[in-house]
Amino acid sequence: MRFAVTAREGAARAGLLELKHGQVRTPVFMPVGTQASVKTLCPQDLREVGAEIILGNTFHLYLRPGAALIEKAGGLHGFMAWERPVLTDSGGFQVFSLAPLAKVDDEGVTFSSPFDGSRHRFTPESAVDIQRALGSDILMAFDQCPPHPCTAVALEDAVRRTAAWAKRCKEQWQRVCDPEAQSLFGIVQGGVDPAMRARSAADLVPLGLPGYAIGGLSVGEPKPLMHEALEATTPLLPEDKPRYLMGVGTPEDLWEGVARGVDMFDCVFPTRIARNGTLFTRHGRLVLKNARYAEDLRPPEEGCSCYTCRTFSRAYLRHLLRCGELLALRLCSLHNLHSMITLARFIRESIEKGRFFEEKKAQLALLASRDTD
Amino acid sequence: MRFAVTAREGAARAGLLELKHGQVRTPVFMPVGTQASVKTLCPQDLREVGAEIILGNTFHLYLRPGAALIEKAGGLHGFMAWERPVLTDSGGFQVFSLAPLAKVDDEGVTFSSPFDGSRHRFTPESAVDIQRALGSDILMAFDQCPPHPCTAVALEDAVRRTAAWAKRCKEQWQRVCDPEAQSLFGIVQGGVDPAMRARSAADLVPLGLPGYAIGGLSVGEPKPLMHEALEATTPLLPEDKPRYLMGVGTPEDLWEGVARGVDMFDCVFPTRIARNGTLFTRHGRLVLKNARYAEDLRPPEEGCSCYTCRTFSRAYLRHLLRCGELLALRLCSLHNLHSMITLARFIRESIEKGRFFEEKKAQLALLASRDTD
Repeated sequence: MRFAVTAREGAARAGLLELKHGQVRTPVFMPVGTQASVKTLCPQDLREVGAEIILGNTFHLYLRPGAALIEKAGGLHGFMAWERPVLTDSGGFQVFSLAPLAKVDDEGVTFSSPFDGSRHRFTPESAVDIQRALGSDILMAFDQCPPHPCTAVALEDAVRRTAAWAKRCKEQWQRVCDPEAQSLFGIVQGGVDPAMRARSAADLVPLGLPGYAIGGLSVGEPKPLMHEALEATTPLLPEDKPRYLMGVGTPEDLWEGVARGVDMFDCVFPTRIARNGTLFTRHGRLVLKNARYAEDLRPPEEGCSCYTCRTFSRAYLRHLLRCGELLALRLCSLHNLHSMITLARFIRESIEKGRFFEEKKAQLALLASRDTD
Repeated sequence: MRFAVTAREGAARAGLLELKHGQVRTPVFMPVGTQASVKTLCPQDLREVGAEIILGNTFHLYLRPGAALIEKAGGLHGFMAWERPVLTDSGGFQVFSLAPLAKVDDEGVTFSSPFDGSRHRFTPESAVDIQRALGSDILMAFDQCPPHPCTAVALEDAVRRTAAWAKRCKEQWQRVCDPEAQSLFGIVQGGVDPAMRARSAADLVPLGLPGYAIGGLSVGEPKPLMHEALEATTPLLPEDKPRYLMGVGTPEDLWEGVARGVDMFDCVFPTRIARNGTLFTRHGRLVLKNARYAEDLRPPEEGCSCYTCRTFSRAYLRHLLRCGELLALRLCSLHNLHSMITLARFIRESIEKGRFFEEKKAQLALLASRDTD
């Protein structure tokens, strides 16, 4: 893996990330393919929207269909027929948010499968082993993500464990992976407490990992607290390594995150609201189910170059949604991902032109206008 | 519209149908886009599977979103972005099978919307008017399709009404349509009674319509009765006009229908079972949910050239189905439609080579073998 920052404006950066399966220009928005599928979309669709890297999830894929099968199929790349880079989350977040009866100790986490109730155990070592088998270009360290809000003791516990586990992940990664082909990123925890964020960063940065993520945000805390936590974290991360804000976000979040030095983003939100018929536009969100679009033969977003906007009208998409036609979910997902990926590219170009803060102000005002007509 | 039979073998025919929006080679299988969407597929997918003509449905589209909007969008072609030919069913079948409280009289049918309970009325004239607005290349006459089984009196009533309504459809069609751009097909009824089939054909053929359909079959009757009814009908239809067997069917049905002189087929069955994870193969049906495919990394159907089989494994599709991933429904639909359309083309070539009956025997034996491994 190689990473270079190619342009800067304030804390905002444009960069180039070179991974085994291809190049990723940053800032980048990464579509989420939790179960080896970016919901409703095939690899052709992902190329159509300009995706350069997608996510998979260790927790889900370990439980179904199992890492051994995916390894046998040639990793996630072979299994889901996606030839560009893949990043996998470690399961640390999901094991606490999705699995019933999770019991954490200093060695790892024991939990039940939400699918069939069977008992399983993740450790830092097994999380790395699974991600190696999945063939991920970027592996995430196994972390403990505390809920928001949580007690100071619980937060400190999570920060301490996350540091110890990151060290064990690094050791296992060095043992079982080719570090040139598969890069391990550490995850900084610390909730919305700037001091705990600083401590977590201080724990992790000395490990000298190829990249760093900011985890434990966008878990229910107010936006200003998220921004504050971010501002307490990114300045402490290495300048020459990629920074990934996990589980974030919206078009607004991309601007705010990049302004605070973030390079990489992922979130299910754009595809989740798409499946509900809500589209991102430069002017805010367009709710296709609204009666006002019943006879609106204009493209979903005028000027958008995605397949959906080039081909279909608001009235057609609304009709499909109203009739429960599954095609609508795909066409809306396609638009929203195209929208996020195109926005990340626009932000990148703004930084290259030294116009980032100017554009940020103008574009956030447009988004707030909600003038989707 | 022009139609020419280009090759024959026994009653089997290969032909070329030229419509306003393009050519259709027969025998042809037509994917069904009831609500202006072939479920889960976009127009690119339909081109990918080789569809030359698709169906829409008057009943559904009249109720949602209404013919006026579709006409304003440039007909079904503009509305759903499909530039090749479209055939629309008249609503005759659906008004009796789907609408609650349908009341038929000699003038037309009054029924309730299954969507909101509102009362509506179809007449032969309004069915033609709606299909004109939808911009269909082929309009179907408004018919009365009796259930199977039904009394002799009910069957005779339906045959009599279907004849009277076909005449009124023809008059309305000549009044409101450009007969060169939009062709009206008559529908022969008569259940599984050969004498009633003969009477219905004798009623309709003198109208000199551009094409004829065989309706009222595949409504629950045993296959041998369907074949008998077919054999009582097709010889009575004009040799120089296309013959369309409505709502049929399976790979086996294509062979049996063509052997009895049918040129055109449509059915929701291939896409319906696809959404349940069942795939057509040359060796019979493959049920992806079976545990035996859990680690099967072979293509769904070896040797198949569809996108799904070129790109993904049985194990991947099974994984998607098991996880409820919507992509599976599209990938399976794509394969089954490709399979039906490719089969129709193979049948056509068999007729051209004078090998139809030989291939029919061999291929039906293969299908019956169910040797999907």
